[in-house]
Amino acid sequence: MKLFSEELKVINIGLESFRETLKKNDVKSAHVKFRPPLHVKPQFLLKIREMVSKTEKANKKALDIIMKARPVLTDMDKAINVIPGMKKNLILHAGPPVVWDKMCGPMRGAVIGALILEGFARNEKEASGLACSGKIEFAPCHEHNAVGPMAGIISASMPVFIVKNETSGNFVYATQNEGLGKVLRYGAFSGEVIERLKWMENVLYPVLRKAIEFSGGIDLKSIIAQALHMGDEVHNRNRAATSLFYRAVAPAIVRTAQDSGTAASVLEFINKNDHFFLNLSMALSKASLEPVGNIKNSSIVTVMARNGTEFGIKVSGTGSKWFTGPAPVPDALFFAGFSKEDANPDIGDSAITETNGLGGFAIASSPAIVQFVGGKASDALEYTLKMYEITAGENNAYQIPSLDFRGVPAGIDLIKVVEKGILPFIDTGVAHKKPGIGQVGAGVVSAPSEPFVKAFESLVKILC
Amino acid sequence: MKLFSEELKVINIGLESFRETLKKNDVKSAHVKFRPPLHVKPQFLLKIREMVSKTEKANKKALDIIMKARPVLTDMDKAINVIPGMKKNLILHAGPPVVWDKMCGPMRGAVIGALILEGFARNEKEASGLACSGKIEFAPCHEHNAVGPMAGIISASMPVFIVKNETSGNFVYATQNEGLGKVLRYGAFSGEVIERLKWMENVLYPVLRKAIEFSGGIDLKSIIAQALHMGDEVHNRNRAATSLFYRAVAPAIVRTAQDSGTAASVLEFINKNDHFFLNLSMALSKASLEPVGNIKNSSIVTVMARNGTEFGIKVSGTGSKWFTGPAPVPDALFFAGFSKEDANPDIGDSAITETNGLGGFAIASSPAIVQFVGGKASDALEYTLKMYEITAGENNAYQIPSLDFRGVPAGIDLIKVVEKGILPFIDTGVAHKKPGIGQVGAGVVSAPSEPFVKAFESLVKILC
Repeated sequence: MKLFSEELKVINIGLESFRETLKKNDVKSAHVKFRPPLHVKPQFLLKIREMVSKTEKANKKALDIIMKARPVLTDMDKAINVIPGMKKNLILHAGPPVVWDKMCGPMRGAVIGALILEGFARNEKEASGLACSGKIEFAPCHEHNAVGPMAGIISASMPVFIVKNETSGNFVYATQNEGLGKVLRYGAFSGEVIERLKWMENVLYPVLRKAIEFSGGIDLKSIIAQALHMGDEVHNRNRAATSLFYRAVAPAIVRTAQDSGTAASVLEFINKNDHFFLNLSMALSKASLEPVGNIKNSSIVTVMARNGTEFGIKVSGTGSKWFTGPAPVPDALFFAGFSKEDANPDIGDSAITETNGLGGFAIASSPAIVQFVGGKASDALEYTLKMYEITAGENNAYQIPSLDFRGVPAGIDLIKVVEKGILPFIDTGVAHKKPGIGQVGAGVVSAPSEPFVKAFESLVKILC
Repeated sequence: MKLFSEELKVINIGLESFRETLKKNDVKSAHVKFRPPLHVKPQFLLKIREMVSKTEKANKKALDIIMKARPVLTDMDKAINVIPGMKKNLILHAGPPVVWDKMCGPMRGAVIGALILEGFARNEKEASGLACSGKIEFAPCHEHNAVGPMAGIISASMPVFIVKNETSGNFVYATQNEGLGKVLRYGAFSGEVIERLKWMENVLYPVLRKAIEFSGGIDLKSIIAQALHMGDEVHNRNRAATSLFYRAVAPAIVRTAQDSGTAASVLEFINKNDHFFLNLSMALSKASLEPVGNIKNSSIVTVMARNGTEFGIKVSGTGSKWFTGPAPVPDALFFAGFSKEDANPDIGDSAITETNGLGGFAIASSPAIVQFVGGKASDALEYTLKMYEITAGENNAYQIPSLDFRGVPAGIDLIKVVEKGILPFIDTGVAHKKPGIGQVGAGVVSAPSEPFVKAFESLVKILC
């Protein structure tokens, strides 16, 4: 009883909201920041200090490689000609490996579209039959030095951008962005979708290829650095980056296109699509992270990718192994007529931008995106500030104006994610769960914990 | 003596820094926000309440007209063909009226360049002689429905953009932006300056004119609304607005230019100049404010402009009368080899952007500019927040992301400026004080008080 008659002095651990109540009642309190770690086995949790000291040097090396990356758009070609291991009957997809039976609706839709585009099937029925016949092989883009947004489908005839990391010499491949609405990457495969893809192959690609060659390569890092000063986080918002890319490439398009009508149609196509740069920001991110894909003792996350069914990650110190768990459904602003009921779980290789410190990690640069889901500019700052707690460092090449030009949080450290119980924050588009429909919204999502728990347990066994 | 033995309870009026000291010493204090008013005559200060009530309705009307403005870039032509009252021997300049003898160095330099460009003189000496001969007339751009950055010189043969405010039907004219470095508007007049102006007349202008016609007009309000979401305040930073303008106009340029080489050279010129849009954001601002130039009982400031010698303003309720005072020298980041010693006092019509709620008033959208002069992102917020104290309202067409998309402070109310002693904040380029040199830096400046004091005293006499 004595306790409540005395002046209360409280130590508050964890949830800050409890402290707010104390403050309101003029009770003095000290606050200890604490969040429970992810649910890894207790004997592994005890290894955290040991793992921190064992990974420190390797993580520093990895971060250094990531920061020194200099990805340049150097050329374009057909997927079959340049992507390592590409074959006529191979279809690349987003996220970790998945078989036809387990594929979500939008990915099936996109596969159907690709089979029609390749001339292997005339309609949905033929394509579905072929897809499950065993004659078509499937593999993740990430296993072929490629990345693809949403369904992420790449088939043999599709033209791809070729991005070279000039520092490490590695190459990454990504398709051209189709725009919004009914598009293959959101699972649509109607006549207009196929027709647009044909136009992109026969008009857009040759014009862009010549312009890129003429310009001697386009420095993607510089474009993204500027775009972060211009309201983009280059995942869900690419208006500035698309504008800067367009500015850089337009004179070369005009100088090299076969005629002015063709040049104008290409410029009009890019001008209508503020997301055109997305595939390039993904390729830059993959090109920056690829060289740290397998560094002994490093706990840096090198891939986060979703296939619409599962969310998968890779970690530098565990190399090419995928760690997966069910993909969550994003919180989103849905287009008129749609709701969370219609939403497919999180899908696409685009979380490679977050893995590289961009996208949701740099969302403080782009408060308009948080507004989508009812958030405020201050929420955007909070999201980014939180990500500094789970990253190995800050990448000064990419700066956030509203944080006084602080470098973005870069190099997700698996150990910090587990210890602090803070999961990577991703902003993303949302596809309808049925094939053939397309995008239904855009929003935000936290990575699920399962892949990180599995990866951590695997890394403990290697390191300790 | 009793005072200091008792617990101190303090009311702090005015400077907040005093309160900070009290806080540190655990002294309780209440704070009263107060700044001394501008130095107007005491008998006029006493009229403030009366003036507030007398101007309320008229200011609301003025603000409504400003917010409903819809300035569209509709066409281009030679100044002589379209600017009202333009003559062969007339040279328009920035700011309030000024005679040759009183003109600052950079404005003289620009006049010399214009006389050479027009073929009236072959060199500096001939041009100077002609300028003071009485054969050449001078008038402010603002008195001819025009605006010009820095020296703001417009001569008869120069091509101008034609911006129509579709809501009120009024027209405004502005030249094409030359880029940075040695350019006429900063007072340079060497061969390269004249050659560039000739190219702008013979290549850039006809190409842009055709493209604007082909595109059916370009909505400047929409471009600026987007640019404020992209790190611009469209006075000292126009990278996003220039990019969006370029995106909009490029396909039309390609479709209408006589050949692809010409089209490419025009695109390359605009692409190299992130300030290209400045003259258009000024024209939009002037076009928005022009219809409120003469509203009975309104205390809204309709023009702020500097000729490099004097800073002049106009107020709605006092119509076309200029109120002037000496122009201050901006605080600036100077280019290598230059210092404040070299700086000309504030110059240019570009403060029309601030008068329209943009530029320094919207600097919270563009923290990169405050960085110039050693400031932080939080300083940028503070500058904008302060401007809400002297404006009649907020213009939701132009939003500031970091303030949760709050509308910019719009419609400077002369009465509030005087009462609160807060002067309009302007960000600006800085010219060398000698003719022929050019830009030496960029920075920020507060308007001087004298024009506002004079305008206030004049308005009091009309209203009370």
